[in-house]
Amino acid sequence: MFGVTILGNNSALPAYDRHPTAQVVTLNDQLFLIDCGEGTQIQMARYKIRWSKIHHIFISHLHGDHYFGLIGLVTSMGLLGREQELNLYGPPQLEDIIQLQLKVADTTLPFPLIFHKLEKEGLIVDTAKFQVECFATQHRIPCWGFVIREKKKPRKINKEKVLASGIPAVYYERLKNGDDYETKDGSIIKNETVTIPNKTPRSYAFCADTIYDESLCAKVQQVSMLYHESTYLKDLAERARARFHSTTEQAANIAKKAAAERLLIGHFSSKYENLHEFLDEAKAVFLDTELAIEGVTYMIN
Amino acid sequence: MFGVTILGNNSALPAYDRHPTAQVVTLNDQLFLIDCGEGTQIQMARYKIRWSKIHHIFISHLHGDHYFGLIGLVTSMGLLGREQELNLYGPPQLEDIIQLQLKVADTTLPFPLIFHKLEKEGLIVDTAKFQVECFATQHRIPCWGFVIREKKKPRKINKEKVLASGIPAVYYERLKNGDDYETKDGSIIKNETVTIPNKTPRSYAFCADTIYDESLCAKVQQVSMLYHESTYLKDLAERARARFHSTTEQAANIAKKAAAERLLIGHFSSKYENLHEFLDEAKAVFLDTELAIEGVTYMIN
Repeated sequence: MFGVTILGNNSALPAYDRHPTAQVVTLNDQLFLIDCGEGTQIQMARYKIRWSKIHHIFISHLHGDHYFGLIGLVTSMGLLGREQELNLYGPPQLEDIIQLQLKVADTTLPFPLIFHKLEKEGLIVDTAKFQVECFATQHRIPCWGFVIREKKKPRKINKEKVLASGIPAVYYERLKNGDDYETKDGSIIKNETVTIPNKTPRSYAFCADTIYDESLCAKVQQVSMLYHESTYLKDLAERARARFHSTTEQAANIAKKAAAERLLIGHFSSKYENLHEFLDEAKAVFLDTELAIEGVTYMIN
Repeated sequence: MFGVTILGNNSALPAYDRHPTAQVVTLNDQLFLIDCGEGTQIQMARYKIRWSKIHHIFISHLHGDHYFGLIGLVTSMGLLGREQELNLYGPPQLEDIIQLQLKVADTTLPFPLIFHKLEKEGLIVDTAKFQVECFATQHRIPCWGFVIREKKKPRKINKEKVLASGIPAVYYERLKNGDDYETKDGSIIKNETVTIPNKTPRSYAFCADTIYDESLCAKVQQVSMLYHESTYLKDLAERARARFHSTTEQAANIAKKAAAERLLIGHFSSKYENLHEFLDEAKAVFLDTELAIEGVTYMIN
């Protein structure tokens, strides 16, 4: 399974029972938390998110609506006796803030809390099955987006064809990696005649808070699902620009230019109670758009 | 009106839709916030607390369940354009934490935020109508309790008696202050023969987090309402002591020894879902006990 569960879809001020930014990405048996606004631990309890499965937390930037819930979550994990290490990725000062708050409370966490300072774009997590990259977005203060990508899966053996070809079983692993086979008489059996491609690796990009910035497109090119903030409706493009945020139409334009498969929009301003216009405006530009609704898991296929 | 509205009644871990400590004391047209656990701004919206009426916030100590919601509340007040000054009273490092978080967000608040470091017991707010004192409690880290007291009100003139006595009107203000009157012939008209006492000033004491400590009684002697933490039921007195907390029976004993008029207990451990035993156990020692229930305003008469 690969999916993203929205825990908070609102911008700075909580309103209409919408909460500040937090998302949980599930990739098979791993959970990743992206951003952690105030009350995230409560939202996690509400939507039955299993904390113990979270080993990596990514914080995009140090505006409060993206991280004020982090110290509470970390402290609660400690109170519940967590022992597994927890990796935190965020702007360098995040460590100072968390350490100061632990120190004044005279709290020693029962688990290793490992800080990874985000200072340049690139790979930040690399495992056998997936990798995570960070990229800079343009906001009022330093801000990072994240792409979580499944790794390319080996090709599948076409059993019938491979048996007929006479290729020895010991060579099958190389076939899965895409290699051709050279027979004793020097002729080449092309890989694609005896294997079939596996599923295309899926990917999820989280564009954090950002002004409209077409240079983002190269960083999130062809992702399976793109989350892009849409703080305002399109008539407030000037206000969006002044505050380093984006509109519906701008988010949809990025999805279109990046050739993303689907678009998820969120970070709605508290000035809007009803969200249907967000969907209408974005869909007019990019049809495969959905609203990020709290408690909903969007599957990435 | 004088009353306290409970916004959070739970100890460290949120549970059963109970929230970490926060209370709003209403004294006529003034609101005071005492402690501010994570999510307090959401609780305030839920219970329609008017932020603009809050000019003083008291933070007992720097365990997260008593202050993690403060930075979010302060930031939201700024986003909403507050201009009135806000006074914060708490342990000295509170200022470092708040200032660091404002700095990394590049946030300049549109209102004066005035820090008052709690370092010794005594008067911290003094106005014409009320005063607030802080006192130390015994907890794992430095911790403060607070007493909010109405000031003594002037005595009331008994019009009939005072007219019959021949005391000149110019002296009435001194009569209200309790002075006797000396007539021209040197005889004394005793104050209590021409005035009647006003209402007894009311008071509310918040005992924060504390181990069982009888020295508290002198500090909260005869208050109209005493809030005392009761993290555990009486069978866990040993655990309470080890963690610098109190039980039902201990809270009730303090109320009794302090000759408080009423007792409010809260800060319930997340291990308890049902709270009725808290009430039963405390009432067995001190009858006028109530549970601090979120959303309820307890009037102080």
